[in-house]
Amino acid sequence: MKSLQKKELLTVQWRRNSVQIIDQTKLPNKLVYLTCTNHHEIAKAIKSLVVRGAPAIGICAALALVLVTINSKAKTGRGLQSELERAGSLLISTRPTAVNIHWAVMRILQISSKGKNIKEIRRLVRLEALAMLNEDTLTNRKLGRAGSALFYDGDVVMTHCNAGSLATSTYGTALGVLRTAREDGKNLKVIATETRPVMQGSRLTAFELMHDDFDVRLISDTAVGYVMANKMVDKVIVGADRILRTGHVYNKIGTYQIAVMAHTHKIPFYVAAPISTFDLKSSISEIKIEDRSPEEITKIKNILIAPKGVTTINPAFDITPPIFITGIITELGLLQPPFQRSIDTLIRRSRRN
Amino acid sequence: MKSLQKKELLTVQWRRNSVQIIDQTKLPNKLVYLTCTNHHEIAKAIKSLVVRGAPAIGICAALALVLVTINSKAKTGRGLQSELERAGSLLISTRPTAVNIHWAVMRILQISSKGKNIKEIRRLVRLEALAMLNEDTLTNRKLGRAGSALFYDGDVVMTHCNAGSLATSTYGTALGVLRTAREDGKNLKVIATETRPVMQGSRLTAFELMHDDFDVRLISDTAVGYVMANKMVDKVIVGADRILRTGHVYNKIGTYQIAVMAHTHKIPFYVAAPISTFDLKSSISEIKIEDRSPEEITKIKNILIAPKGVTTINPAFDITPPIFITGIITELGLLQPPFQRSIDTLIRRSRRN
Repeated sequence: MKSLQKKELLTVQWRRNSVQIIDQTKLPNKLVYLTCTNHHEIAKAIKSLVVRGAPAIGICAALALVLVTINSKAKTGRGLQSELERAGSLLISTRPTAVNIHWAVMRILQISSKGKNIKEIRRLVRLEALAMLNEDTLTNRKLGRAGSALFYDGDVVMTHCNAGSLATSTYGTALGVLRTAREDGKNLKVIATETRPVMQGSRLTAFELMHDDFDVRLISDTAVGYVMANKMVDKVIVGADRILRTGHVYNKIGTYQIAVMAHTHKIPFYVAAPISTFDLKSSISEIKIEDRSPEEITKIKNILIAPKGVTTINPAFDITPPIFITGIITELGLLQPPFQRSIDTLIRRSRRN
Repeated sequence: MKSLQKKELLTVQWRRNSVQIIDQTKLPNKLVYLTCTNHHEIAKAIKSLVVRGAPAIGICAALALVLVTINSKAKTGRGLQSELERAGSLLISTRPTAVNIHWAVMRILQISSKGKNIKEIRRLVRLEALAMLNEDTLTNRKLGRAGSALFYDGDVVMTHCNAGSLATSTYGTALGVLRTAREDGKNLKVIATETRPVMQGSRLTAFELMHDDFDVRLISDTAVGYVMANKMVDKVIVGADRILRTGHVYNKIGTYQIAVMAHTHKIPFYVAAPISTFDLKSSISEIKIEDRSPEEITKIKNILIAPKGVTTINPAFDITPPIFITGIITELGLLQPPFQRSIDTLIRRSRRN
């Protein structure tokens, strides 16, 4: 068990015509893998947070479309293409705020539309999805490289939710930056916020950092102000589910208030996210913030911890305005304020390459 | 059961030489009363949060000293007095940050020192403690009256932790103000924060407000920024465990960041606390912030919800500097900035009366 746990965490894998994912609802107590053989199983796994994290659910959606091409009984290329479109819509609907599923589905559909027949569509979709899976790890490594220099030996870094191995195929975005900094010889300590209601901080971030022998301390979400006021935090780093052209960052509920507290205490606040997280077209009014079930707040493992029938407000994400963000770390480099300009420049450059 | 629940919640009562308290660790699922017949049982109940809330634990400490006089086998008044002092020290040590236990013990010891013999000490202590129990309810009513005018019909009011009936003998401080405002014909809605790790917001505040037919919505502590940014909050009101002469407010962990968020969003932030909460002598460096067990964060009802052995930082309280506070509501009136001056004036006035 010990040696099993010490392997690198592989959150999403492609295994003999199936998708194997770590069941994150079972963490931190059990490391269990779930095998999905059709896109409905993957949609359900995304919706129920068996797999979560913007990059990871993007990759899962792409691999789900490979399963569609394998399971399809379509007689024509056009038939298969419309099956892919229906499956893509279903997958996008599972988590409306994170842009990565949308990005992954669009990328696969664009490729599949080039296939002249069923066989060719199958081949193209499979190659593209597996390329995306490999790219994800590579992207995270580049992102780590781009951000490592921001962190100094001895820094105590606060992180919220989980933007680690468990939010990507492996290695992580925000936690990937901390991994690279450590590989560069810097000794970092981490403070992980619990991240109510779903507790990705205690269940996932604390788990994966302990798994990798990081020095990690867990706090309640209520203790953010206390540890900052007591000078126990040098930097903050989080992931993102969607970043607008203006630099507004959609991320796990609670990110915004951590950013405001960091600003109040003059603590640098970094966002780490791949280019696939950027949404250059939408404005705030167009993005739906997912409102999730009251039971996430009122129950833990089916035990009622609030009065029966209490009304809740349970948004999954909040928006951090650019004024509270010190820098956005991407695989193409560090973005600095003013973000609208640095994002435009970066995207133009990435399109030229 | 329904009719039982609809009675006013009596958190601390004196019943035939015993102290009857609501066991708050059983809420919101069960309304169970615990009967204590000696001061050790009360100290344990305070330590384990069976009873909590600054005013309530002050009253409990006073009544615990009545039990000491009843159970004592001392042969002399001096013997009984030293038993009271020992018991007082034990009670103060259970919760070092809240000033009210200290206040209550000092008040009782001052009275008991005037007793010439065992019988007289018994009588004096009993009368004083029962007076304090009665005063608490009266104080909360006055405090409600002093604060009601700050709240308008239709206001949505955020509160943190529990400063309600369950934090006092009955009626509450912060929630007492909302009760008075409602008695004055104003329709208020409440947003209660869960208040991790001990969840006084979901277990106690949501419970007591639903019990009293308030319109209450529960949020995770992470959603404070979201609801404020979305203009869903008009005012904030919280209680306090200790208020310094400078206006620094010690209250449940998480209060400070709510105050900063309220300030950022220009939302008035009120503290409601009786005069017994003021500590005019101590400075910040002298006050110990209680660091509680990791298990409050890592377990819920004995179920492990974080990796086994994870290190935590678990302060019970934080400090809100006066700059983030709009007003402090006391039974003698509303204090406004600059607080050092308004607190001094109020205390001088209260001593003249």
